[in-house]
Order: sequence, then structure tokens, then C-alpha cells
Amino acid sequence: MRLGVCYYPEHWPEDCWAQDAALMRASGLTRVRIGEFAWSRIEPEPRRFEWDWLDRAIAVLADAGLGIILGTPTATPPKWLVDRMPDMIAVDRDGKPRGFGSRRHYCFSHAGYRAEAARITTALAQRYGEHPAVVCWQTDNEYGCHDTVQSFSAAARDAFRLWLAERYGTIATLNAAWGNVFWSMEYRAFDKIELPNLTVTEGNPAHWLAFRRFSSDQVVSFNRAQVDILRRHSPGRDITHNAMGFYTGFDHHDLAQDLDVLGWDSYPLGFLEQFRFTAQEKRDFARQGHPDIAAFHHDLYRGCAKDGRWSVLEQQPGPVNWARHNPAPLSGMVRLWTLEALAHGAELVSYFRWRQFPMAQEQMHAGLLRTDGKPAPALAEVRTVADEIAEIGDPGAAPKHAALVFSYPSEWITQIQPQGEGCSALWAAFSCYTALRRLGLNVNIVAPDAPLDDYALVVVPCLPIVPDSLSASLGAFTGQIVIGPRTGSRSDDFSIPDTLPPGPLAPLVGGKVVLSETFAQGAGYSGDGWEITRWHDRFEGDVQAEIIADGGAVACWKSGRTRYCSGWPEGALIQEIVSRAARDAQLECAPLPAHIRRRTCAEHIFEFDYASAEVRITPNN
Amino acid sequence: MRLGVCYYPEHWPEDCWAQDAALMRASGLTRVRIGEFAWSRIEPEPRRFEWDWLDRAIAVLADAGLGIILGTPTATPPKWLVDRMPDMIAVDRDGKPRGFGSRRHYCFSHAGYRAEAARITTALAQRYGEHPAVVCWQTDNEYGCHDTVQSFSAAARDAFRLWLAERYGTIATLNAAWGNVFWSMEYRAFDKIELPNLTVTEGNPAHWLAFRRFSSDQVVSFNRAQVDILRRHSPGRDITHNAMGFYTGFDHHDLAQDLDVLGWDSYPLGFLEQFRFTAQEKRDFARQGHPDIAAFHHDLYRGCAKDGRWSVLEQQPGPVNWARHNPAPLSGMVRLWTLEALAHGAELVSYFRWRQFPMAQEQMHAGLLRTDGKPAPALAEVRTVADEIAEIGDPGAAPKHAALVFSYPSEWITQIQPQGEGCSALWAAFSCYTALRRLGLNVNIVAPDAPLDDYALVVVPCLPIVPDSLSASLGAFTGQIVIGPRTGSRSDDFSIPDTLPPGPLAPLVGGKVVLSETFAQGAGYSGDGWEITRWHDRFEGDVQAEIIADGGAVACWKSGRTRYCSGWPEGALIQEIVSRAARDAQLECAPLPAHIRRRTCAEHIFEFDYASAEVRITPNN
Amino acid sequence: MRLGVCYYPEHWPEDCWAQDAALMRASGLTRVRIGEFAWSRIEPEPRRFEWDWLDRAIAVLADAGLGIILGTPTATPPKWLVDRMPDMIAVDRDGKPRGFGSRRHYCFSHAGYRAEAARITTALAQRYGEHPAVVCWQTDNEYGCHDTVQSFSAAARDAFRLWLAERYGTIATLNAAWGNVFWSMEYRAFDKIELPNLTVTEGNPAHWLAFRRFSSDQVVSFNRAQVDILRRHSPGRDITHNAMGFYTGFDHHDLAQDLDVLGWDSYPLGFLEQFRFTAQEKRDFARQGHPDIAAFHHDLYRGCAKDGRWSVLEQQPGPVNWARHNPAPLSGMVRLWTLEALAHGAELVSYFRWRQFPMAQEQMHAGLLRTDGKPAPALAEVRTVADEIAEIGDPGAAPKHAALVFSYPSEWITQIQPQGEGCSALWAAFSCYTALRRLGLNVNIVAPDAPLDDYALVVVPCLPIVPDSLSASLGAFTGQIVIGPRTGSRSDDFSIPDTLPPGPLAPLVGGKVVLSETFAQGAGYSGDGWEITRWHDRFEGDVQAEIIADGGAVACWKSGRTRYCSGWPEGALIQEIVSRAARDAQLECAPLPAHIRRRTCAEHIFEFDYASAEVRITPNN
Repeated sequence: MRLGVCYYPEHWPEDCWAQDAALMRASGLTRVRIGEFAWSRIEPEPRRFEWDWLDRAIAVLADAGLGIILGTPTATPPKWLVDRMPDMIAVDRDGKPRGFGSRRHYCFSHAGYRAEAARITTALAQRYGEHPAVVCWQTDNEYGCHDTVQSFSAAARDAFRLWLAERYGTIATLNAAWGNVFWSMEYRAFDKIELPNLTVTEGNPAHWLAFRRFSSDQVVSFNRAQVDILRRHSPGRDITHNAMGFYTGFDHHDLAQDLDVLGWDSYPLGFLEQFRFTAQEKRDFARQGHPDIAAFHHDLYRGCAKDGRWSVLEQQPGPVNWARHNPAPLSGMVRLWTLEALAHGAELVSYFRWRQFPMAQEQMHAGLLRTDGKPAPALAEVRTVADEIAEIGDPGAAPKHAALVFSYPSEWITQIQPQGEGCSALWAAFSCYTALRRLGLNVNIVAPDAPLDDYALVVVPCLPIVPDSLSASLGAFTGQIVIGPRTGSRSDDFSIPDTLPPGPLAPLVGGKVVLSETFAQGAGYSGDGWEITRWHDRFEGDVQAEIIADGGAVACWKSGRTRYCSGWPEGALIQEIVSRAARDAQLECAPLPAHIRRRTCAEHIFEFDYASAEVRITPNN
Repeated sequence: MRLGVCYYPEHWPEDCWAQDAALMRASGLTRVRIGEFAWSRIEPEPRRFEWDWLDRAIAVLADAGLGIILGTPTATPPKWLVDRMPDMIAVDRDGKPRGFGSRRHYCFSHAGYRAEAARITTALAQRYGEHPAVVCWQTDNEYGCHDTVQSFSAAARDAFRLWLAERYGTIATLNAAWGNVFWSMEYRAFDKIELPNLTVTEGNPAHWLAFRRFSSDQVVSFNRAQVDILRRHSPGRDITHNAMGFYTGFDHHDLAQDLDVLGWDSYPLGFLEQFRFTAQEKRDFARQGHPDIAAFHHDLYRGCAKDGRWSVLEQQPGPVNWARHNPAPLSGMVRLWTLEALAHGAELVSYFRWRQFPMAQEQMHAGLLRTDGKPAPALAEVRTVADEIAEIGDPGAAPKHAALVFSYPSEWITQIQPQGEGCSALWAAFSCYTALRRLGLNVNIVAPDAPLDDYALVVVPCLPIVPDSLSASLGAFTGQIVIGPRTGSRSDDFSIPDTLPPGPLAPLVGGKVVLSETFAQGAGYSGDGWEITRWHDRFEGDVQAEIIADGGAVACWKSGRTRYCSGWPEGALIQEIVSRAARDAQLECAPLPAHIRRRTCAEHIFEFDYASAEVRITPNN
Repeated sequence: MRLGVCYYPEHWPEDCWAQDAALMRASGLTRVRIGEFAWSRIEPEPRRFEWDWLDRAIAVLADAGLGIILGTPTATPPKWLVDRMPDMIAVDRDGKPRGFGSRRHYCFSHAGYRAEAARITTALAQRYGEHPAVVCWQTDNEYGCHDTVQSFSAAARDAFRLWLAERYGTIATLNAAWGNVFWSMEYRAFDKIELPNLTVTEGNPAHWLAFRRFSSDQVVSFNRAQVDILRRHSPGRDITHNAMGFYTGFDHHDLAQDLDVLGWDSYPLGFLEQFRFTAQEKRDFARQGHPDIAAFHHDLYRGCAKDGRWSVLEQQPGPVNWARHNPAPLSGMVRLWTLEALAHGAELVSYFRWRQFPMAQEQMHAGLLRTDGKPAPALAEVRTVADEIAEIGDPGAAPKHAALVFSYPSEWITQIQPQGEGCSALWAAFSCYTALRRLGLNVNIVAPDAPLDDYALVVVPCLPIVPDSLSASLGAFTGQIVIGPRTGSRSDDFSIPDTLPPGPLAPLVGGKVVLSETFAQGAGYSGDGWEITRWHDRFEGDVQAEIIADGGAVACWKSGRTRYCSGWPEGALIQEIVSRAARDAQLECAPLPAHIRRRTCAEHIFEFDYASAEVRITPNN
């Protein structure tokens, strides 16, 4: 695994570049990621390019022996471009334009902007595509950041209509598939279909799902256009993109098919603060992050990546600026996060950023250097961990224990139709992940069409649409299976299957769901040390009620090697169910305290302690 | 009382209609409600009608012996109509259009849409008006659902100006009545008056009250246009409409004057979850509903209905899809709710809906049948309760105990000017209703102009505008009276009376309110086991301080047969006051536990137990 | 100190004016404030003036011996004016117009409205400028009320561009100053700059700060235009304006430079309810107000006023209408608030309003008279306190103990970039004020350029931009100094200084801040009886760690006579630090209970008890 850093030569006087590059190398960094926000410096006026500064920056960095990851600058189109095509701006769900003045101010469906994005990508690729130091390209930056995948613009509407015509062929097919007879929502032609926002009450969930798919496809095709250009002009280089945390706005399985390496941006403290953790967890892990945050994404994005190649393109090195509260990592955390990425198989950990920039939006976002150019606390940790990585060497392949099946449309469906507050497929996956990791298991988070052969245990937390390939692979699977609620509960067009949920998985689970209810905290069913929270499915079938709540509600059904979790898969209930399944799968489990996580590799077993008390990690040779 | 069901033949293959109809009859149902969302199937293109399928559906249902309630489809105008007159769309308070894609996407003030609504109503009425199986018409569906009464469109603005000119005659009269001299808000002509939204800070409350009245009147006249057409073409049939729960967007007393039967849609679990109940009540009654939810509306809408004829047009039969959490009713609840409607005098309980539809917005809304056509749990209860109803027969008239006076403008006034958080006339009425029902009394919720002669006790929880008719009827009333805060506190145009509150009721209550204050929880005044919450009125007059808080704040004043509740009428305080008044009225009271309610009829006394433990109701012959 | 009252003759029949005036005088009032909302009565149609009624009203009031404060009516332009220039309306941050129907419906940048405001001001000033009874003018009313300083209109955008061109000279200067290279936000011309709202994610903080400054400047120049007219036509009269509570939308130090007297509107109960007090404080002080609310603003606005001349232009006399809850003041509170204003040096306390108006928006806002013309409870207190004031006479000058430095841009900066929830410069100032007042000290809240010579102690709670004048005055200051976090942390254009915070104050504090973190409640560092909340700065330098938390975090650094508070300056921590500093400054401190405040004057020492139990204040001769 290599270490790198994100750098913005355009922010700093040219005479400090060489010194910066030298210090990077001295700190154990061998990759530098540049360029992704520099459009206004590369092309300050329409068609007038200024390459000199960038030529020199690349030269300086290359001369220092750094491999360069070069970003296309399409996340930040300059003002002159927006002024030339004002309708390239995205429109939010309320119909408000999302204008210039920060970043990501474009609509993925705007043909004019697509042409401009291709033009600037081509220009960059032509100039630096064959540069020996350019080892990797990054397309754009954080697709979807600031909720930018869905645009409710005229361009999006027109493109959506074409997309629908392509998918459904005839309007009658669409009307039938969506059940538009309900509430007289039938359309007479594709060009009469509106975007699903601004309806009086909620729109048809099939309409929303189609729009979510379309919006995701627009991201994928926008990205693919850049990839095609880069492959043409820069043969042999890797192409990557930096995904985000707890983000499902587009289908990362789809996007990753066009990339060589899937990167992601790891901000454990910001994510802890901004996402769905309890007040207690936010206090206990304020300066470490919840112990599953980083690893969950490592294992998720490894599963998305075409050949399992992934990296951390941005690693939090200190306090950030964008969460509600922004604490400093405990001393040692940057080192721990880096080693954990190694244990999970990263190719690269790139810290964000080199030197804190004293101006503009991210002036309070720490770097490896302070704004005054002196080392921030993380730099010493980087230097240390670089040596440790070298010493550890290749940790070796990780044996496959459990597969956790997740798909992006699952989360779209639970967002569109939660039915009960907090019933989210993403967080169901995270809860199941925690339950498995608390047993000390390796987890691979995989797409529904992934092969399952080598695992002892497969968990499908919440997968409303079950593709044929998964029915087949689960049918052939000989290990233990855990299925969660809503799995198999929807057709591809968001209708309930004629056979009732779990649809195609009914043979496997031995029954069907005849009633689903949701409830508030405290209105569920409880058992001995566990509780059925949020959701409950009633079952009909020839199955065994394995876990039963006081009063008779069944929490877990068992049929052969398959368990069905009837309550929402979280907390003590899912811990109990996966523990039973792991035991039946004869997996060697080692229940861990709440703050410890283990990763087993061929050459090393890693244990990461997220407690706030100081612990020294001794690599186990 | 009859039982019925809501049915959508257009959702199902024609070959299952006869079987459905037969099973309805076999389940004890004799009414079927159809058609209210079928515009796109009746008129798939402008002026091209497709009657055949509906002819056949009606024939099949009629042949099975079902009486048909036929709905006009104006709640769901088809897309081609919206495309033809895009400005028929309502506009929300923020100025955003409320477009096609769900339902109720029209502005009540749009003349073009009114003409279209009349046209489709006429077409339906001409075709089926004399059909022998069509026993009742329903106009539109749930006027006001999804907050659709108020529209801030150009059409609404223009109609509002005409309405104001009609009401006030001259602009000087309006300016004087509204106090527009305040903040230089004077208008020089009716056509200069804007809608009251989008002001810098709150608009003139008189402006808002006028707009609320106008908006209500638009609903009433929209409905009346349909009623007139239906009476012309379908003589002898009842006309109804389905009102909602805890909904006050238009004046139901006004609307009901044009109807023969007032229906309402009873979803006790959804209402418990969505409305103002405590967390404890939401837990305790999660699968039953609060014991006053259904009965409150039964007694409210019976009092709105022209001749006291009312029905439940939609009865929840299982989990719904639209609340924050959607639990399943306890076994037996559908039966209990049905019997309670019987006890309160319903003509009909119609379950919503026959078969759960596996697509579109309400796919998670239970029916009597599951999506796979098998019986859902409620069907067996329906069959049982149908027999019980037959056995019980006519429960007989309910003796009049207490009248509770409520008017819709009261709630508009407390919404426009709460003065203290949570001070709502509707919820004051609900709290007083609970207090009376906890004593085992029958309650009639009546309009201010209703006759009061036959009652022993009258409660006026919060009635800012007191019409002369109420002053007169209360003056002549010989029973006990309880008056709550804000009563008589406003003129018809939202000004404080010269004589101070309670205005015309001052002689009755023996004094006047010289200061009103509101306060947060914990900042009120407390007595022995009760508390003055939210609001307190200070009094001047020759009255007796009957209930006094520690420190001297008076909670209840008494003058002759009238008590004035100086605190907000809720909780233990109002319970104590109505108990004293009921005792003085020599009403036979039977204080009931929190989960029991009683309804006394000439032939039967009903008791309904809303506890979550199972209890068998034995009809008492 | 004089007493006065706000009066609206246009609201009342002419035949009650003389009686009102006589009762005012009999109640001890000698000033009457009128006219500020009367435009539609003064000029009912364009260019047609109706002066007669106002002539007569002024004559009646003058004849009674009342000095008149006459308001310009520009806060409430009449409808005909808005109809003539619809684009005079301000636009909110979401792009929505803020229309007619309440007040303050104008954009400060609209040239057409500025001309109209000058025209009506000139007309008034010409007619009454030399009237002997007109002793004072008030410009407009409560600039900024209802969040009206910032307008996102086309007029504002155009004016902002000119303002930027004026400030920065060249676009390159602006781009460099704002760091626009970040995210390619560079502009090629001033007329390409947009307003900072409606960006995809947060805009550049430098962009926002510029817009806040511009918006403030627009208020100041709008006001100055009126002042210039009034000075021309009404020589020798004072000019004032009424500021608000906890309001920082424009720079009051700037505005006050053009006024003779700075007024403010004191609503202790409404402010307690609406602003950042704990639930406990809101309960304990519900009917008194927090004991620092009124005094904080007295001391703040005295420091803003050009020659220290200030007044209370509106004093709450009973329940108001605009808070979430609106309790009545305890008996005696109006008297207490009035005496407290005297103790802090007010020239005038003017009660709002004379008689409660029974119509329109403020019908529930108490006056000295009730709507029926009878005395409200406050009137008797006014009569009493008028005699007491006469008896007390001039309280004499207040010795200078502590200066608290506050600037309006500080609060803009912490609003634009809080970095941690609740980190506000205004509330830091309020917390420090409380800490000083709990020691029994006199406090002057001063601008950064105020002279500091006469104080024993200076506290700078949070002043990101430190002007040279403050560096100089603090450098020369010989007393004790307390500096809070973020002080000196920003350049004038919102960038972090090269030398790190506290920038120019580094020599004074003996070190620099190398890392700042923020955290949620419970995630801070605690010591013995105190806690580091919200924020923590790590320090580098040759300084003494004076107060240290468990685990080693330093809460207070000391260098010579300067202390640096490393945590957010609030609660027990700042109380401890200012106590140490006051002791070192040899100030005679008298720690007071939470409900007592002291004000020391040359002739009297005042103590104000805000406990809810009744206490008799005996002036100490």
C-alpha cells in the first residue's frame, strides 16, 4: 500500500512547490493528487488555456519522485461557462436553481455542459496523457456531493422522457408497470411525463424509482464519457473516482464498472457527527469515529470495484470544517485509520490535504501542514505509519467469512417508501455489518450478482428487488443464510409480487410475508435481552419459529439453512440471529468488545481498538 | 346500519369482479363504493368516453345485490386536462405550483376546472343517475386532503377580491373592519388586495380570516355545483362526501347543508400517530387508537350533518401507508370500531378497501383482501360483526346529556393567532370531549346555532366569535354551562370587542377578561392535582372564584349556572370543572378508566374497552 | 430621565386625544412618540397629503405639555407605492419576494424607494421641523426587524457589485482577497459576481462577509439620507432610532454615528422566550426576564451611541403577542425595568404603547391602557416610578470597572462560519457580561476602537478581526485582560492570518493557536466544577497554563496581565477566569446570587432582584 496526499499547487507560491514535494517524500508519501478544482486557472477565459503553471507543477512533483493522480476539473466549472449557458445549473426539488458560488453547480443531463466537460477533459488528457509521472486519472470529484445527483431541470426532464421511452418502449407498458390507473395518473405519451417533484402529495413510488435510476445512469454516462476520453489519450493509466461516506445517490456498482480503481474519502469524525449514530456513540467515539465507519466503506467499495482494487483518496488528518461539531482526532487515530485501510486491502491512502488553506470554504479543514506551513499533528503519524507499512509488508489475502449483500436501488426504495421511520436498507446493512464484525469476522459487502461460493455465511439485510442471479446463487449456496425484511418484496417496477414477499426467495425461506407493520420505539415486541424494533413481518408457511417474543410475535423463522429476521435487522436481535447462523456455519467467532474490531489476513491478524484510552498497537509478526 | 366496502374495478381483471362481488355479499357487505378516481379510464382522451367497462362493473355489482355509491372523479383530473389548462393547478403558500403526479391537483377557484368538473359530473350523472343500483353519490374525495383548500394562485386571488367586494361592499368598510390603519395597510380598491401569504412578517389576522372563509366557501360552492347536477339527473339518491379526521380546512357545517349524508374516513391508528397525542398515548394505544378518536368524529359529523345522517365511508382495516409508523390493529379492533360506529348512530360503515393494490402510492395500505386475493385478518372480523349488528338491531336513540359547541372559524382563529403554543380550538374541543366521555356521558358536538334545549350541560371550549343565536340559546338554557377561554373574544372581523371578552356572554359569565397570558409548560399555576396550562385569563366582575391555584390565580369562576375555565381547557383542570358541572346538572356520571368509553342508547348501553389486553364484548340484551 | 409613551392618534377617535394627553401627563409622562406607521394617513394617494389630522394631533399633545418624538413612516410604505414600483420589494434568501401586507416590505438598495423615502421625510420635516413641541425625530422603525436587512433582489445585486468595485478596486484584488482560486470561483469582472445565496453548498465566507457588510452599509446610508434631510429642516432637534434586542443584522456602531441618541426596544419577557436561554431559565424568569437581558442592551447601546446618549424607546408594559408564549410580567417588573434603565443612564423610557389596539397584528400586545380604555396593570407602576425617579434624581456617573469589547462583524463571522454549533460572538459577549455582572461590576460594552484607559479590566470574548487600534490600546492598557477564542483569527477579508490566531494579539497573549476543535455537549474536557464546552484551542508559546482540565487540556493560558480562555467563554469556566482577572485587577467584587444585579453610580448603588418572590427595593440614600 502506498501513501499519498492531495495537493493544490495553484494555492501556493511557486517557490514553495519543490520544498513541499521534498517534504512529502521525506514523510513517506509517494503519490500526489492534484488538479481537480483548477479549471479557472487552466482555462481562465473561454478557449484560452494556461498550461505553463501546471506543466511546471507537475514537473516539480515528478522530479521529487511523486506519482501524480490528475483530476479532471469538471466539478467546478468557471463563472464564464455558467454565464454562457445559465441553464446548465441544476434545479433542486423545490424548483430553485443551484447557482454558481461553491461547487458542483451543473446538471448531469445538460448536453451543453457535457460537451464542455468532454472538451476540458480532452484538453487535459491530450496535454498530460502520456506524461510519465501521471500514473492515474481521477474523474471529476465526489459525484453527488451536496445532493447533486438529482436535478429537476428542464434538461433533466427531457432526458428522463427519453430514458423512459428507451426503458418501456410504449406508454401503455409504462402505465401498466407503474400502476398509473391508480388516481388516474395515466400518461398518453412519454413527452407528457413530468418529473416526480412538486406533486400535491407523494408521487408514485415507481415514478420516483425510475427517476432515481435515470439520475444514477446520468452520472454513470457522464463519467463514462470522461473515461473514454482518458483511455484514448492516456493509455495504461489507472482511472479512479472518489466516492463518499454513507452515500447512495447513484449506483456505485454501475459506476465502478468503468473505473480501474474505486476510491473513497474517509472522514470518520465528520461521518460520526453527521450520520445516524446515537448520542452515546457520538460522545464515546467523538475523536475516533465509530469503529465500523471506515471498515464498512472499505469493504463496501472493495465489493463495488471491478477487480476489487480500491483506495482511500482522501483521509481525514485532523478536524474538518463541515460537521455540526468538528473535534480533533485523538493522537494515533490517523495512524490507526491508515493501518486499518491496509488491513482491508487498500492500494493507497491519500491524506486530504497537504497544507491547510487559510481562505475560502475549507479554511478550517486541517491538513498535514498548518496554514503557517508548520507540521500539523498528523504529519508525524504519517511518517511513523509509513515505516510500519513497509515493515508489515503485504498483509496477505483475507479469508472469506461472511458476505453481506447490498444494492443501491434497495436504499432508493426504502428512502422512497420507508413505511416506518428509519427503515433504511443502507442502515440495515450497516447494522448487520456491525453484528458480523462484533463476532470478529471478515465481511465482504457484495452486489446481488456477486458469486457467493467461498463464503460460510451470507446475510441479505434488506433487498426489495431480488434479481434472478441472486435467487440462483442463494439456491446453490451451501452455507448459512440470513434474510432480512422487505427482501424480495418488490418487482423491478416497485410493485408487490403476486406471490407476496419474499417473492423469488419464498422456497428458500419456506414461507411468505402476509402482513408487515411498523411502529415507534417502545411499541414493538420484546424478548429476553432483545427487541423487535421498527418493523415486523407476519409469516405464513411451513417454517420453524426459532426466536419468539413475549406475547408470541416471531422474531426469527428458520427453514433449513436459512433464517428470516422478521424484525428490523438491528441491535441485539440481529446480533443473536447472525451469531446463531455463524455458529451453524462453523465459523470461528470471537465476540469482541464494542470498541475492538479484527481483520484476519493470511499473513497478519489486525486488531483495532477504538476506545478513547491510549493503546499501543504492536504489529504481530 | 349497513356495511360496505370501497372497490376499484378498474384495478382488477374483469373476470374477477363477479367473484369479488359474491364474496362481498357473503361477508355481510351490502354497499360498494366505486368510481372516485377513475376519470382517466372514463374519459381517456378529451371528450372520448369509455363507459363500457363501468357499465359492466356496475352490472356485476348490482347483480350481486350490492347497492352502489358512485363517486365523481374530480379529485383526480387526468394529465391531458392539466396540460390543456396548466393554471388550474393550485399554488402553495410559498408560491410553488402543486403539480400533476398524485391527486387533488386543482385550484377550487379556477373557472376552467370548475367547468370541466361540471362536465364530467354531468356525463356520469346522465349515464348512471337513474340506474336502480346506484343508491348514493359521493362528490369528489376528501376535500382538503393534503392541505389543498387554500390555494395562492392568480385564480384564487381574483376570486378572493370578488368575494371581498361582495362581503364588504366598500373598501372603506373593509379597511375599517380589518383595522388597516395599523401599519398603513389600507387599500384603495378591492383589486389592490393581495393574498395574505408571502408577507414580510405575519399578515393582518383579519386578512387571513377572510381568506380562510373565502377558501372554505370555494369548497362549498365547488361541491354545490356537483350536488345541483346530481340532483337534477339522479333524483331520489342520497348525496354524500367523505370528510377526514382532525381536519378543519373548510367549514363542514356549511358543506353538510348541501348533502343528505355526511361521511367520514376513520383511520384511528394513523390519526393517533400523526396528531397531537402524547408519547405515552402513542405507545399505549398504538394498535387500538386513542379511545376518543373515532367517537369524537362520529359525534362531530353527526352534528354537522343536515338531518343527523352520517356514515363511515372509509374504515381502516389493517396497517395503512401514510403515517410515520404504521402498526397493525389488534385482533378485534375492526370489529370494535364497527360496533362503536353503530352505537353512535352511523348508517353505514364502509371498509377501505376491498383488496390491497400492489402498485402505486397506497400499495402498503391494507384491504379486506391481501394483494394475493386471500383474506386479510379484518375480513373475518367483518363477517362476525355483520352478524352481531343484525343481532343487536337498532340500538335506539341516544339520550342527550352534554352538548359541546364547536365552530370551524374558531379553529381558524386559533391557528391564525395562537398567542401561546398549542392553544387550538379543535384540541380544546377534543380535551373537553374526553373529559365528558370519561364521565360516561353521551356528547353531541354541535354548531353554535344548534338548539340546546334538551341537554343538561353545555360546554363551549373555545369559541372566539359568538353569534347572536348562541347568546340567545345559552341565555335561555336552564342547564349547567361551562365556558372556556377566548370565547366571545373576537368580532366577526377578528377584533377584540369593546366590552372585552367574553363579549356578548359577559352577562352569563358575570364578568370580563381583563388580561390574558400564555406560558410554557412548567410556568403555569398549579393546584391540588391539577394545573393551569398554556393560558390564563384574569377576570373582573362580581363572580365567585370557585377553583383557586396556589398563589391565588383563579382557575374557575362561577356565576349562577355558568362556570368559566380561566386556564386552557385540558387535563385534570377541565376534568374537575366538567365533573362539577355534570354533578350540578344532576347527570348520572360513571367515571371510567382511561381505556373505557360508554355510549348509552335507548335499547342498549355499549362499553368499548381500548386496553391492549383482549376483552370480549358481550352485547347486553 | 424622562418617561414617555408611544401613541397612535390615527388609531383613535379625535375626541379622545385630549383626554389621553391629559392622562399621560397625570401619569408622569412627558414625551410622546408618534407617527412612525402613518404614511397611508399622511399621504393616502400619491402626492395628496392630509396633514390636518396630524396637525391637530400634534397640537393637542403639545398643548398638554408633551414633547413629541416624531417618526418618519418609511417602515410602512402604502400599497399604492408598492403597486407603482413592485420591484422595491425585498427578496428572501430562497428567492421569494417579501410582499405587502405587514411592514418593512422594502429593499434598502432600491433607488426608487430611496427617493420616495427621502420625499416623505422631506415633506414631514418641512411641515413639522420647526414645530416647538417636536423635540426629537425617529428615523423609520426597527431597521432589520423580521430579518429585513439582507435582500437578495436584483437591486441589491447591482448595488453590491458597485460596493465591491469601490472596496476592492480591481477584480484581481477581490479574487486574491477572497481566495477564489479555491474551487475555481474566480470572477473576471465585478458585474459577474452574484449574491451569495442559492449556491449548491455554502458560499465563500469572504463573499458572505462582504455581503453582510454591504447590507449593513445600505442600512446606514438609507438612514443617513433621512438624517441629512431632518438636520436641514429641523435644526436643533435630536435624531434617534429604535434598535432591537439580541439583533446584529447591521452594524449599530456605524448607524449610531449619524444619530444623537440611540434608542432601543426592551421586551425582556419576549426576548427570554425567543432567544438562547435554557429551559430552566425560561421557567425561573418567565415573568421577569433573565436579569441580564435589559442591562446587557443598556450597556451595549450606550457604548454604540455617539456621545453615550441612549434611551428605551419601547418598554414592554404587559404581555406581548409575538413570542411563542406570552406571559404577563410580575407585579412590579415594569417599575423595576424602568429603574434599571435609570441606573444604567437612560435619558428616556417610553412605554409601548399607550392603549392596546383591538385590531390587526398586535391586538394581543398590552398597552398602559386596555382596549376598553381602562388602566392596564402597568399604568399604576408607571405613576409610582415617575415619583421615585424624581425623588432619586440624577444617579450620578457610573465608575468604570470592566470593558467588554464587541463588534458586529464578529457576530457575522461566527454566523457565517460557526465551526461548532452555538459558537456565536454575540452569545459569547452575553456570557462574559453575565460573568462580570455576577461579580457586581459595572460593565461597558465597547467597540474595538474605544479608549480603554479608565478600566481595570478588559474582556474580549470573541473578536475575529482585531483592528490596529485595538492592538494598540490593549498594548498600552495597564489593567487585566481576558481574551476569548477566535480573537485575532481572521483578516479583514476572512482569511486566517499567516501568523495564526490571535494574529496581532500574539505578543500580548504570548503564544499562538495551532489547532482549534469543536465538540458536542458531553464531549469536552472537564475540570473541578467547570467544563470546556463547544470549543478548544491548542496553544504554542511561552505561556503559563493557569487552568488545566483532567487529562491535560488547558482551559486558560496566562501571560503577564493577559489571560487567554481556550474554551468557549461561557458558564463556570469564564466565571472562574474573569474572577481571577478581577481579583488581579484589584476590583472590589461582590459575588451575587443568580437573580441579583448591582449597578454602582456616583450617588446611588442600585440592586435589582429578579427573583419571582416579591422584594421591596429601598433606594439607599
